[in-house]
Amino acid sequence: MKNFVLRGNLCTSRTKDRLECIPHGYLVCEGGTSAGMFEELPERFADYPIQDWGDCLILPGLVDLHIHAPQYAFRGTGMDRELLEWLNERAFPEEARYKDLEYAAEAYGIFAENMRASATTRACIFATRHREATELLMDLMEGTGLKTMVGKVNMDRNCPEGLREEGEESLAETRRWIREIKGRYERTDPILTPRFIPACSDAVMRGLGEIQRETGLPVQSHLSENEDEAAWVKELCPWAGCYGEAYDRFGMFGESAPGAGPQTVMAHCVWPAEEEAALLKARGVFVAHCPQSNTNLCSGIAPVREYLDAGIRVGLGTDVAAGCGESVFRAMADAVQVSKLRFKLVRGAGRPLTSAEAFFLGTKGGGAFFGKVGSLEAGYAFDVIVADDRNLARPGGLSVEERLERLIYLSGPEHLRAKYVEGREIFVR
Amino acid sequence: MKNFVLRGNLCTSRTKDRLECIPHGYLVCEGGTSAGMFEELPERFADYPIQDWGDCLILPGLVDLHIHAPQYAFRGTGMDRELLEWLNERAFPEEARYKDLEYAAEAYGIFAENMRASATTRACIFATRHREATELLMDLMEGTGLKTMVGKVNMDRNCPEGLREEGEESLAETRRWIREIKGRYERTDPILTPRFIPACSDAVMRGLGEIQRETGLPVQSHLSENEDEAAWVKELCPWAGCYGEAYDRFGMFGESAPGAGPQTVMAHCVWPAEEEAALLKARGVFVAHCPQSNTNLCSGIAPVREYLDAGIRVGLGTDVAAGCGESVFRAMADAVQVSKLRFKLVRGAGRPLTSAEAFFLGTKGGGAFFGKVGSLEAGYAFDVIVADDRNLARPGGLSVEERLERLIYLSGPEHLRAKYVEGREIFVR
Repeated sequence: MKNFVLRGNLCTSRTKDRLECIPHGYLVCEGGTSAGMFEELPERFADYPIQDWGDCLILPGLVDLHIHAPQYAFRGTGMDRELLEWLNERAFPEEARYKDLEYAAEAYGIFAENMRASATTRACIFATRHREATELLMDLMEGTGLKTMVGKVNMDRNCPEGLREEGEESLAETRRWIREIKGRYERTDPILTPRFIPACSDAVMRGLGEIQRETGLPVQSHLSENEDEAAWVKELCPWAGCYGEAYDRFGMFGESAPGAGPQTVMAHCVWPAEEEAALLKARGVFVAHCPQSNTNLCSGIAPVREYLDAGIRVGLGTDVAAGCGESVFRAMADAVQVSKLRFKLVRGAGRPLTSAEAFFLGTKGGGAFFGKVGSLEAGYAFDVIVADDRNLARPGGLSVEERLERLIYLSGPEHLRAKYVEGREIFVR
Repeated sequence: MKNFVLRGNLCTSRTKDRLECIPHGYLVCEGGTSAGMFEELPERFADYPIQDWGDCLILPGLVDLHIHAPQYAFRGTGMDRELLEWLNERAFPEEARYKDLEYAAEAYGIFAENMRASATTRACIFATRHREATELLMDLMEGTGLKTMVGKVNMDRNCPEGLREEGEESLAETRRWIREIKGRYERTDPILTPRFIPACSDAVMRGLGEIQRETGLPVQSHLSENEDEAAWVKELCPWAGCYGEAYDRFGMFGESAPGAGPQTVMAHCVWPAEEEAALLKARGVFVAHCPQSNTNLCSGIAPVREYLDAGIRVGLGTDVAAGCGESVFRAMADAVQVSKLRFKLVRGAGRPLTSAEAFFLGTKGGGAFFGKVGSLEAGYAFDVIVADDRNLARPGGLSVEERLERLIYLSGPEHLRAKYVEGREIFVR
């Protein structure tokens, strides 16, 4: 692994409230890890080659805690629906097509290439229930150079014929999947992926809990996205005090003790029961806040301010295709915007998020799910993007902080000049 | 004026609920006006040159009913504020700089070029209170080829020293402005622009009302954007039953009788008093719905469904820089999205807007403020954009309607291939 230095306007989150910016600073990569941000380059790095990015912004790579690869093909269409209707009419029929490996190769090929070209360096990805297509997706993601977790989905009830696996088969296929990919990838890890409680019988959840304990794998799923869905879970699991408990009962909800694993990320958490927030906190579960998805499917607005105040771990998800695209910058802007509408329209809602907080969520906040990830600070994985905002012309200058805020609101694919993951160059253009 | 034919996938709003799409159809331009949409080219147009746009989408040009040119320079920054704070800390200090014509030339030059390159063909534009800079902006907008209405702003109270004109001076400068530009432009018209009631004394409003009656000019302003602002107007104009009446009293609120003029467009209308909706309807006032601005400034969500059901005229505004950019496609997506949150979070709110309705608002709905504008149908001004969405790759095809929806959510500057205004080519690339 090469050592090198990037020069440019550095900007990273120290804490959720505090940005650190170094105009025309130096960022040092040693063995795939940041050796720190500097105003002047320390003598000890004087031999490292320097890439000077001029007036560009140098930022941590963005982290997407929730995205559905098989829904990417219909992004931006079919939006005039709510969650359960949308699942049945749009998401499920499309996902059923991934039984066909030829289709999967084409569609996942587009997804992987667009993820490579995006500002995202880390992602938690849902595949479908199809083992072979999931392995194909993992092959493709490995090829992008990104670090991702990819899940073969489990679903054995309340879903169409073509997507349902019988419980036994679902578990057997999951075991086979984990066995087959063992040692195959450097950058692509499996993650256990029960779709959501309504689509998973107790038997499948129990079996997945066993697999989790055997393998130590992390877990991703959906939680309290929509009021109707939450009411449905109450019917399906009358024994659970809250939706989160329906996962927890099977050992699929965060850490049984602090530091014990598994790490769990739950998308949405828009309508937490009172005891659910406490359980999220107690189990160290990550919330993948998906503001645009929650808007598009009329789900509502998650109480992110309250989660942050309670010390619950939060990151951002684009949730394609309920979110229309893979931009985590857009997810940051969406997070600020919906928090303002919640503040204005929901009695007792906490104050809106700031752009600095949204940037934290999309970098260091979500990055923690992957370890020391999501910051330019020393000791963090060298996941970095370089953004050139010159085409956002204006008279006079802006501070680095202001340029970051503007990028959150106005970034497009044309602004990205380079991306590195653990010090490895993904593209430079 | 040349006659010609465009071939491609035509899509336009017939009514607010109904799209008309003709795959691989023909759109005929005669003398700057549409001569119709056709599946097969009628014999009588056989001699006209045909530009074949292949699989591109051919759509009406987009209409922006509310944008502040002098705020364009700080778009995407300073968002963590509410309206009155944002005006005092961001908007007013920036606008004060337009006294300096050199600054104005640079900043308005960027604005005009980006408007030219956008999907917008018509716009209602606020300048500042500075007559000379306003004329400069009009010169620049004329050069873009777009058809716009541009307003020298009037403001004589509750605003910083550098922006305030004394009432007499404000009116004299307005008269001088109208006199100086008379006959100067083909495509750029003046529009009377009292900033908003809190910034305009009764004397200025009375004087503007007189100018309106003498000149017949249209009017643009702001209405019921923010609850604090609406309460302030109640204090300032205790004699007005509602905020709209404070304009109406001076003859600055729509048509005194149907068809009598002036045409008025009021931005926002988020918090209408009960009698205000009736007055909007009675006076034929256009509502410029600015969903992103209303979100960014924590103003709220305008009751657009209720306005449409009541037969009130509605179009879209980007409201740069309270909205972060000039894309009216984005304003369409924002309009759908905030309507969903309103539906979900506000008791008694009407059902969400559909993407077809949002497209109507951003084309034919707002276009009506300019006359027969905003449609591809025969008799409408030939304001047309051509969009190439090939880079939104996916396996298999989509209908024209689905591609339109996707463009609303995912369009970027790279998708625009051509723009025509009244049959005149603005760019082809």
